[in-house]
Amino acid sequence: MNSITTPSYAVHFNQIAYTELNKHLSQSKYSKIFILVDENTHNYCLPTFLAQINEDYDFEIIEIEEGEVNKNIHTCTQVWEVLSELDADRKSAMINLGGGVVTDLGGFVASCFKRGIDFINVPTTLLSMVDASVGGKTGVDLGPLKNQIGVINQPQMVLIVPEFLKTLNERQLQSGFAEMLKHGLIRDAAYWESLKAVLDFENIADFIYTSVTIKNEVVLQDPTEQNLRKILNYGHTLGHAIESYFLESPKHDLLLHGEAISIGMILEGYLSFKLTGLPESELNDIKASFLARYKKTTFTKTDIDTILTLLKFDKKNSHGNVNFVLLKNIGECAIDIKVPEDLLKEAFEFYAE
Amino acid sequence: MNSITTPSYAVHFNQIAYTELNKHLSQSKYSKIFILVDENTHNYCLPTFLAQINEDYDFEIIEIEEGEVNKNIHTCTQVWEVLSELDADRKSAMINLGGGVVTDLGGFVASCFKRGIDFINVPTTLLSMVDASVGGKTGVDLGPLKNQIGVINQPQMVLIVPEFLKTLNERQLQSGFAEMLKHGLIRDAAYWESLKAVLDFENIADFIYTSVTIKNEVVLQDPTEQNLRKILNYGHTLGHAIESYFLESPKHDLLLHGEAISIGMILEGYLSFKLTGLPESELNDIKASFLARYKKTTFTKTDIDTILTLLKFDKKNSHGNVNFVLLKNIGECAIDIKVPEDLLKEAFEFYAE
Repeated sequence: MNSITTPSYAVHFNQIAYTELNKHLSQSKYSKIFILVDENTHNYCLPTFLAQINEDYDFEIIEIEEGEVNKNIHTCTQVWEVLSELDADRKSAMINLGGGVVTDLGGFVASCFKRGIDFINVPTTLLSMVDASVGGKTGVDLGPLKNQIGVINQPQMVLIVPEFLKTLNERQLQSGFAEMLKHGLIRDAAYWESLKAVLDFENIADFIYTSVTIKNEVVLQDPTEQNLRKILNYGHTLGHAIESYFLESPKHDLLLHGEAISIGMILEGYLSFKLTGLPESELNDIKASFLARYKKTTFTKTDIDTILTLLKFDKKNSHGNVNFVLLKNIGECAIDIKVPEDLLKEAFEFYAE
Repeated sequence: MNSITTPSYAVHFNQIAYTELNKHLSQSKYSKIFILVDENTHNYCLPTFLAQINEDYDFEIIEIEEGEVNKNIHTCTQVWEVLSELDADRKSAMINLGGGVVTDLGGFVASCFKRGIDFINVPTTLLSMVDASVGGKTGVDLGPLKNQIGVINQPQMVLIVPEFLKTLNERQLQSGFAEMLKHGLIRDAAYWESLKAVLDFENIADFIYTSVTIKNEVVLQDPTEQNLRKILNYGHTLGHAIESYFLESPKHDLLLHGEAISIGMILEGYLSFKLTGLPESELNDIKASFLARYKKTTFTKTDIDTILTLLKFDKKNSHGNVNFVLLKNIGECAIDIKVPEDLLKEAFEFYAE
């Protein structure tokens, strides 16, 4: 698998990833190297990772608590304090070994520590491999507001080692797979068809490669999200609000990110059918395909009202308007579509049918 | 006074500043404009400032507590929460009206809010006019570690209105003047001579202009501080450590930034005399000129030991080494000079003599 290059760094796969990492570390002469992990990646991924490092570096391991609830400024401050105590300096580097929480938070921590030190992302979940590996978005949540605080900053390199997927359970894999299905929906109908047929995740490396390629091609054309890049938000406008609401609401079980956006993609599919000409057959295909993978969630009227209130806080909204990315067909998007509020409620009814 | 242009924005002076601001605001069509102030600038500068705005914008005023002790992540989080509550979005902008705490913290808050919104700096102290107005450094302190957390990011414009200096007392003006004296020492011996003769701060606008020009010219040549830009740290390596120590130590009165770096410039003058050939006559000129403006501070042995421990945490240090910017002559620097520890103690003795 060839490496995928972005304007400022490369995404390396499998054994080449370790070769490139070893080369980079020996050339860069970092004063110290910090590896950010959570409890899970500390136990299940770090030993495998360290076994592939050729030379004897002065690694320091920093462990944060796992889960989206800890992706906040408080955790950042703790990591900044540990970095300071351990004498991290401007020539230090950070390797973020983990899922989206570790790579998003770690990227932000590194980008702000002494106004920026080098960092390398090693995503260990399917979601972070296909989603967080390109684009340079770093950040943390502010209360219920997802990724409200962050910067755009690029890592030195990204290493994708599908072997780490063996540490994940079926539910986590399905969650990541939702972002891959999104790549098909927004950009490539044939890819969508082949993804629908995937029943197990044993041999998924080629699909990861396709997804990273699609995302990279989109980000390359529009790095600052003026136009095209917005299509990556398909399913996320409502999906984020749903995810935030379930995170904060004590009476609901947690929804994983992919589970939340799978609901968002059905709801926004309905909006696409109503507003941007998505054929009804494709809408039904989208709904059936997601419900075959992700258990249907029940929303009360209060749930829906609160979610619609959260909507207006979404980062991508401006001037108080909520702008949606919708589908014209599977594989083709329309951006900056305004949606009347009653249609949003109808979409929830369509989902519940 | 002509505007000074940097690669990404301009510094405007006096009435032109307001003309350019009005033009920018009417062209930019921000969804909302937030003005960050502290209690002092809220009372003494904001009315003057608002009186110069032509159109009727939907301004929201956010007030933070004044002083370096509040330049921290906790204050940032408060401002981020207020921005969220007030529906700030990606098309909102922030105007930072205040001294270095407001412009440094406000720049950081804006740079990280929803991964970056526009901001405009309106420095109201002499220090922030000559120091914080170019270079794009934003950030906050982490405990005793100054500017440990931050990013490099450029404002949309900087407005320098010397009229605001009337709101400052003599001690605050002298503090800012220390950075101007530094500009003479590191880059322009004739400027140093003319600054020494300044007795009151009534007609200081031309000097501010010269200082901003010097700083801009240095930053332009080396935006990422690989080489030349390091000279702006003259006096700051020891000065920062002294300032941090006095900030945290309950038995000492607070030292203002300029007061701390004035001590740093004498100490590092001594190191320059010992290591980089600064003539003894120039060393004595530096010491006498600073002591004529800034009251001599007494350091105990414990004070000095603690300050030297803080030194190794300075942002600019890497691989555990402390690198100094020293003077070859007044007006010319040498960078990346390592200094033996015993010489640091001697420098404090020279200062006390």
